[in-house]
Amino acid sequence: MSIMIKGGTVVTDSQSYQADVYCENGVIKSIGKDLETPSGAELVDASGQYVMPGGIDPHTHMQLPFMGTVATEDFFTGTAAGLAGGTTMIIDFVIPSPQQRLMDAYKQWREWSEKACSSYSFHVAVTWWDDSVYKDMGTLVHEEGVNSFKHFMAYKNAIMADDEIMYNSFSRALELGALPTCHAENGEMVFQLQKKLLAMGMTGPEAHPLSRPPAAEGEAANRAIKLAEVIGVPLYLVHVSTIDALEEITRARSNGQRVYGEVLAGHLMLDDSVYLNTDFESAAAHVMSPPFRKPEHQKALWQGLQSGNLQTTATDHCCFCAEQKAAGKDDFSKIPNGTAGIEDRMTVLWTHGVGTGKLTPQEFVAVTSTNTAKIFNIHPRKGTIQVGADADIVVWDPEGTKTISRKTHHQNIDFNIFEGMKVKGVPSHTISNGRLVYINGDLRAEKNTGTYIKRKAFQPVFSALKKQAKLNQPKPVKRT
Amino acid sequence: MSIMIKGGTVVTDSQSYQADVYCENGVIKSIGKDLETPSGAELVDASGQYVMPGGIDPHTHMQLPFMGTVATEDFFTGTAAGLAGGTTMIIDFVIPSPQQRLMDAYKQWREWSEKACSSYSFHVAVTWWDDSVYKDMGTLVHEEGVNSFKHFMAYKNAIMADDEIMYNSFSRALELGALPTCHAENGEMVFQLQKKLLAMGMTGPEAHPLSRPPAAEGEAANRAIKLAEVIGVPLYLVHVSTIDALEEITRARSNGQRVYGEVLAGHLMLDDSVYLNTDFESAAAHVMSPPFRKPEHQKALWQGLQSGNLQTTATDHCCFCAEQKAAGKDDFSKIPNGTAGIEDRMTVLWTHGVGTGKLTPQEFVAVTSTNTAKIFNIHPRKGTIQVGADADIVVWDPEGTKTISRKTHHQNIDFNIFEGMKVKGVPSHTISNGRLVYINGDLRAEKNTGTYIKRKAFQPVFSALKKQAKLNQPKPVKRT
Amino acid sequence: MSIMIKGGTVVTDSQSYQADVYCENGVIKSIGKDLETPSGAELVDASGQYVMPGGIDPHTHMQLPFMGTVATEDFFTGTAAGLAGGTTMIIDFVIPSPQQRLMDAYKQWREWSEKACSSYSFHVAVTWWDDSVYKDMGTLVHEEGVNSFKHFMAYKNAIMADDEIMYNSFSRALELGALPTCHAENGEMVFQLQKKLLAMGMTGPEAHPLSRPPAAEGEAANRAIKLAEVIGVPLYLVHVSTIDALEEITRARSNGQRVYGEVLAGHLMLDDSVYLNTDFESAAAHVMSPPFRKPEHQKALWQGLQSGNLQTTATDHCCFCAEQKAAGKDDFSKIPNGTAGIEDRMTVLWTHGVGTGKLTPQEFVAVTSTNTAKIFNIHPRKGTIQVGADADIVVWDPEGTKTISRKTHHQNIDFNIFEGMKVKGVPSHTISNGRLVYINGDLRAEKNTGTYIKRKAFQPVFSALKKQAKLNQPKPVKRT
Amino acid sequence: MSIMIKGGTVVTDSQSYQADVYCENGVIKSIGKDLETPSGAELVDASGQYVMPGGIDPHTHMQLPFMGTVATEDFFTGTAAGLAGGTTMIIDFVIPSPQQRLMDAYKQWREWSEKACSSYSFHVAVTWWDDSVYKDMGTLVHEEGVNSFKHFMAYKNAIMADDEIMYNSFSRALELGALPTCHAENGEMVFQLQKKLLAMGMTGPEAHPLSRPPAAEGEAANRAIKLAEVIGVPLYLVHVSTIDALEEITRARSNGQRVYGEVLAGHLMLDDSVYLNTDFESAAAHVMSPPFRKPEHQKALWQGLQSGNLQTTATDHCCFCAEQKAAGKDDFSKIPNGTAGIEDRMTVLWTHGVGTGKLTPQEFVAVTSTNTAKIFNIHPRKGTIQVGADADIVVWDPEGTKTISRKTHHQNIDFNIFEGMKVKGVPSHTISNGRLVYINGDLRAEKNTGTYIKRKAFQPVFSALKKQAKLNQPKPVKRT
Repeated sequence: MSIMIKGGTVVTDSQSYQADVYCENGVIKSIGKDLETPSGAELVDASGQYVMPGGIDPHTHMQLPFMGTVATEDFFTGTAAGLAGGTTMIIDFVIPSPQQRLMDAYKQWREWSEKACSSYSFHVAVTWWDDSVYKDMGTLVHEEGVNSFKHFMAYKNAIMADDEIMYNSFSRALELGALPTCHAENGEMVFQLQKKLLAMGMTGPEAHPLSRPPAAEGEAANRAIKLAEVIGVPLYLVHVSTIDALEEITRARSNGQRVYGEVLAGHLMLDDSVYLNTDFESAAAHVMSPPFRKPEHQKALWQGLQSGNLQTTATDHCCFCAEQKAAGKDDFSKIPNGTAGIEDRMTVLWTHGVGTGKLTPQEFVAVTSTNTAKIFNIHPRKGTIQVGADADIVVWDPEGTKTISRKTHHQNIDFNIFEGMKVKGVPSHTISNGRLVYINGDLRAEKNTGTYIKRKAFQPVFSALKKQAKLNQPKPVKRT
Repeated sequence: MSIMIKGGTVVTDSQSYQADVYCENGVIKSIGKDLETPSGAELVDASGQYVMPGGIDPHTHMQLPFMGTVATEDFFTGTAAGLAGGTTMIIDFVIPSPQQRLMDAYKQWREWSEKACSSYSFHVAVTWWDDSVYKDMGTLVHEEGVNSFKHFMAYKNAIMADDEIMYNSFSRALELGALPTCHAENGEMVFQLQKKLLAMGMTGPEAHPLSRPPAAEGEAANRAIKLAEVIGVPLYLVHVSTIDALEEITRARSNGQRVYGEVLAGHLMLDDSVYLNTDFESAAAHVMSPPFRKPEHQKALWQGLQSGNLQTTATDHCCFCAEQKAAGKDDFSKIPNGTAGIEDRMTVLWTHGVGTGKLTPQEFVAVTSTNTAKIFNIHPRKGTIQVGADADIVVWDPEGTKTISRKTHHQNIDFNIFEGMKVKGVPSHTISNGRLVYINGDLRAEKNTGTYIKRKAFQPVFSALKKQAKLNQPKPVKRT
Repeated sequence: MSIMIKGGTVVTDSQSYQADVYCENGVIKSIGKDLETPSGAELVDASGQYVMPGGIDPHTHMQLPFMGTVATEDFFTGTAAGLAGGTTMIIDFVIPSPQQRLMDAYKQWREWSEKACSSYSFHVAVTWWDDSVYKDMGTLVHEEGVNSFKHFMAYKNAIMADDEIMYNSFSRALELGALPTCHAENGEMVFQLQKKLLAMGMTGPEAHPLSRPPAAEGEAANRAIKLAEVIGVPLYLVHVSTIDALEEITRARSNGQRVYGEVLAGHLMLDDSVYLNTDFESAAAHVMSPPFRKPEHQKALWQGLQSGNLQTTATDHCCFCAEQKAAGKDDFSKIPNGTAGIEDRMTVLWTHGVGTGKLTPQEFVAVTSTNTAKIFNIHPRKGTIQVGADADIVVWDPEGTKTISRKTHHQNIDFNIFEGMKVKGVPSHTISNGRLVYINGDLRAEKNTGTYIKRKAFQPVFSALKKQAKLNQPKPVKRT
Repeated sequence: MSIMIKGGTVVTDSQSYQADVYCENGVIKSIGKDLETPSGAELVDASGQYVMPGGIDPHTHMQLPFMGTVATEDFFTGTAAGLAGGTTMIIDFVIPSPQQRLMDAYKQWREWSEKACSSYSFHVAVTWWDDSVYKDMGTLVHEEGVNSFKHFMAYKNAIMADDEIMYNSFSRALELGALPTCHAENGEMVFQLQKKLLAMGMTGPEAHPLSRPPAAEGEAANRAIKLAEVIGVPLYLVHVSTIDALEEITRARSNGQRVYGEVLAGHLMLDDSVYLNTDFESAAAHVMSPPFRKPEHQKALWQGLQSGNLQTTATDHCCFCAEQKAAGKDDFSKIPNGTAGIEDRMTVLWTHGVGTGKLTPQEFVAVTSTNTAKIFNIHPRKGTIQVGADADIVVWDPEGTKTISRKTHHQNIDFNIFEGMKVKGVPSHTISNGRLVYINGDLRAEKNTGTYIKRKAFQPVFSALKKQAKLNQPKPVKRT
């Protein structure tokens, strides 16, 4: 299968230029002005449009078993919705239960994910510690192409990683050249505040953000950063939602530490007034962790993207429907946590980022795709438009408009947190793995056509950190 | 017994003026120009000198059982040394073992402290949690005049308080109007780094500071501060030794949070090169936690005092002699932690603070005495020169000089971390509880003459915080 | 004349206690429990009330000639309104025109101020520079009791001080032991933005805040601070109204620099939406510089008071009536700048500071009176309740309420920026200079009964800075 | 002329990969594995070496008339020395005298620069203001390919730009899509401190850093940033040398402002102890502005590069020999300011950046070349290795070593501030404009072979800022 994209403006994270792009056998074969179209090639007219690397969503949870239920979006429907929105790859999470072998969980997730229709990969969570975890981390890195491990600092009495687990896991990650990542919320604070709020009669969704204050996120972010500093390993914080956590990242980076931050489309756009909605279904539909925050945090998060203190954007796509959310009708702490967004991230970012002058188109590419590819070491196979790269491409119509709605989205969930938002700047075509899978509203996703992407360990900063460690190696004082 | 101090300049934290001060029956009876000296009163000639409130050292450990041995300085010798240095009150620590009833430990320490010869009081450590701890905290506040509780965030597998203990204890402290205090070092990091360093063959005292990096202190400081923020209780951090922790305090205070910081005379003056001494005895004698730091931290700590971000100065006076320190000859982590200083704090602070223009004399009074009295709610009984206050007074000779040495100090320890320091500005007379106990080198301390000082709960900021809590009280959303 | 205040709670900046206070001949004669009331003494029943030092407003402009008109409030009406609000002293400003001798202006203002009915004093502005200014600064300090000099960094082409003037004046102030103060707004920015806005057709009061953005204040604050740092002189910034300026102060203070900040009651309470009022009179009535700001700045300013990064509160009381404000009907830059508040500052601060738990009563005393007295070196004569201090006292009824209104205020202006605000906590009695001048709404102010207060140079930090300068004195390198 | 580079590892700012690179007619013609070498092509064996974009030095002053003399390095010798060090392009400065037409100065410099042997371009300084300056800025942008204008905030009474000049020039730059740049030091402070130091008898080079304290740089940096913020234009600060200025940049960037910072190789490596050298010639040879700083600044500057808060590295190459420096024998303020380094920048950065693990090789490329190309809008023609880009290439031998010395350098100056430094990582070949000009020590530079590079206005952030300005456009309030 081959595709010729004619007449568009190629935009990467560092340049824009007029060129045609030709794809064959799943990769980009040539880029240039006035390329000749081989016979048999599908033709995409990109005139007046941008040709950009397909989006990569580094944070999704397809068909996740969580809080007693299972997320409704599976690996097929979820990756398909991504393609409809211009996202051509996801990095999902393998989450072993404490005491479960990491390899067992990993195999389970690989089985579930076979139905995917775009590229995909996995972070693996470290939720407990013993020698088998140490060993399985090695197997995952060396044999399975996993180069990042996740730590939940929240969810006490479930999957929470305490300092001991994190110290051990971060140290092991450093040995392996893998990147530790953290969900930064202090689980003890959340646990105690949930108890306190319930005891006060605060049982509705409006208690959710109160049980997870910005301080809980700031604390955990700082703790993870300091652990990483002491160990000498880079660190990636998922879904940064507060000034508090961003401040910690900014401080660490300013001090030269290798820390990365991810922000969700939802946190950039919504504030915590959603939890005051008198309609329980709507309020509960917004329950995710960390919660939506006061508006000043949104402003700061955009600035984080502008300054480069935050590098990636994601969704934490995790779908629970009204029926599932109803489990927390009388106790907010039992509402399954999660919101959707994989289909909307790119257009929301473009509309409110590029459309308002907060970001340039090149920065848009960086924060929706390239930076993720670099941090997780799959660049330049993914995250850019260049000869030899995978043909994961979105053709972007900057004049195209639509109104986001659960009625029209492809996501398998009965709610859309961006409901009614008018966007300007939408994908006209999505090419995944060299196949034209989305054309102006026509989604042609097919089950089991996705590709598992192995990611190599030791992205470039690891060797820099190794040199530093060597230089800083302490020596004993000689005493007589 | 009565004493007339003639011809001096009274200095408090907020003013200086020429006046005579007359003491009777343990309290200050009158202050004024040209007071008549009652017959029988001892006369102190303070001309050319300052008359200041006696120092209060909020952080000492007399005869502490710790790391398998017992500190050599007992409550008598320690408070006596304090008097020789112008310090007329200490706040020591009751440290229950985990599972030990707080009241039992408290009683033990009260017994030990009977021999003291100055005013004294106790913080009580919370090293574990159950209902009895909750109950005993109440008893201590209501019946015993304890208004502060200490939490060791270091010393894993011993007395370390984790987030759960701290959350519970801080919450209880808030109810009681008592102040939580913390030794801020991340115990997990220290534990792991000790293991790692020993495994690398780093067994000497030079490994001590490496096992407790500034990041470990900064992390814990921030964690304690965020817990206090979430709970709505004021917080006091003991022995702040790093830029990292100071930054956290400064940030919290700038945000309006009620956080206090203490700094030790030692951390203001010494740097971590002491651990590189090829003489084991000297290097080991400096082992305390947190350790002495790189010189840039000293500069920042002085600025903390100048800016008011740090309010109090202390010593963490805890004496172990060479023989005891030798327990860690082959393993730095077994060197009993502690250094002395109660006798030297005031003169060191004066020489290097007032003498260099870093502090005014009024600020010196504030940071050596008044602020501690205010924070621990014994002001104006302690910490100031005013009619009705306790007659705890130091007459300070700004021209007096001496050279600090273990050979001449009164402290019961064979080492002095300020050995050889020439100081200018020394106490000429110390009055404790209305008794003249130190006169130009002549120390007249007597066992069992000290007074246990009860401290009332609810220092003023507590009622302010209560009003805030009430205003911020959440209300459930009404849903149909 | 003598007055006995019975049964109240004395509150100073550092303590509260039950005591009677007896005043005679303008000073506080005795303080104690159950004092006997001398015959002839007026009796004030203070039971259930607080007895506090009278307020000091360090920033007023009575009968100021400015922008082509003269402020309507004169020294009598203005100080009288102050007394009605519990404020017993003002520090006003002598503002020489460029080229006018400072002494000439000073004499003019002394003449105008004779009619005052409370204590008063003057800062003198340095609006130009030559040898006569240098000389007159000396005369003012040595003979007239002026210990502070003001610099307007705004008002280009009028009274703006550029870096050269400031460098010279700050250096001279250091020699004299006088405190430089600054109105921190970048005059060039304001000038250019006014031109730009007018050219865009933005002629109404809504353009006023746009012409003076927070960046203009932040810039100037930092510039003044850096000049003071380089010269080695303390610095006082008047009417800090932005996060931007507060950040600069906080940073400088954290670095140990001696910088002070003042905040206006108005900036603590109002935001810039007042300029959008469709009623020109109302919008124009709020025109002052710096302007009211977006709400986030208010929050930060309160935190500045809580943290001690801001020390004093003031009003910049400067009254222009509707007729005068109308001069800028078609050009916002011609609206005379100024708002009133001397009568309301104390009650507004109490209601929104103490009443909400942001401040303790002791902190209230500090920020409304004591800190100003200390910074401007008239403590303890002013700013405290102690024997020998001036009898400038307010008896404060914490349960008293009223609604602020131009209809009932004593200020000589037809507008009140706090109109309609319900306050709880009001003065019941004001004693000025030992005279009972305000009793529950009955204002007994009399012209020409005020006292000019001389302020001595060299407040304590100056000698500390001198020691530092000496230690840092550079020495030439010897070269052959 | 054609060149084939075989067997190397191509390194750009975002990737590294094995490939051959073929250049023809001054541009890169193809990149790939195992390219066939056309006959006639010169062959460069790059095995075991890196193939990187040639360095761009954005800050040089060839043959500058300054302080009564003229820099000894001319455009030929200077660019030749650059080539010997792997630098293939410079951006020099046209500096009109106040009152001189910008176009006249520009023509003068273009004439001088004809002898250059590498690519070159010019920033033009705005040292005064009138309509002709406004007009000439337009001509320079539209016709001459100048897209950046420099402002000296220092050098009072000479070329200093005050706030009025800067406001006007920045505003004009915004219209034109050109980037304002600043030398940030407060000229008034420097002027006054020079006078003060000379009056104290501090006449030697050791007074130079004292006359230009970090506060002077921090102040000016902040002022320029705030002006740029208010005007809405991006900003570039040259030779950032202090924590103070870096803090301002970091803060502004964190707030989303588009501010860039440049750092000199010298400031990264040297501290101010050089001015204490008892040899006047050596001390004077180091006199440049801003001066070398205390060591803590070096650490921070490296962190600035790591965090991306500083983007570019330069030299401020400006050569004055001992004879010229002697003009300031008795008055440090008369020592011509300037140091050399164009030949050493790349190897110093590699050795101390990549060699120590502070930077990755890709980051090295970014900070020595790519970022400058992007900021000054000549990317991807310059600053990268890609087909179609100019053949400005350095082949880098990571194992090559040498010792830097004035005896062996090609720079036309009798001193080297890096004298004796052993470096590891040196250029083996430099290709400029498709010509092999440096081969393992053999420099084949030829006069007049350089190319003037026109730079287009409106680099991408300008259109983003335009959108923002449009959204923030104020609207008048309608009043009746």
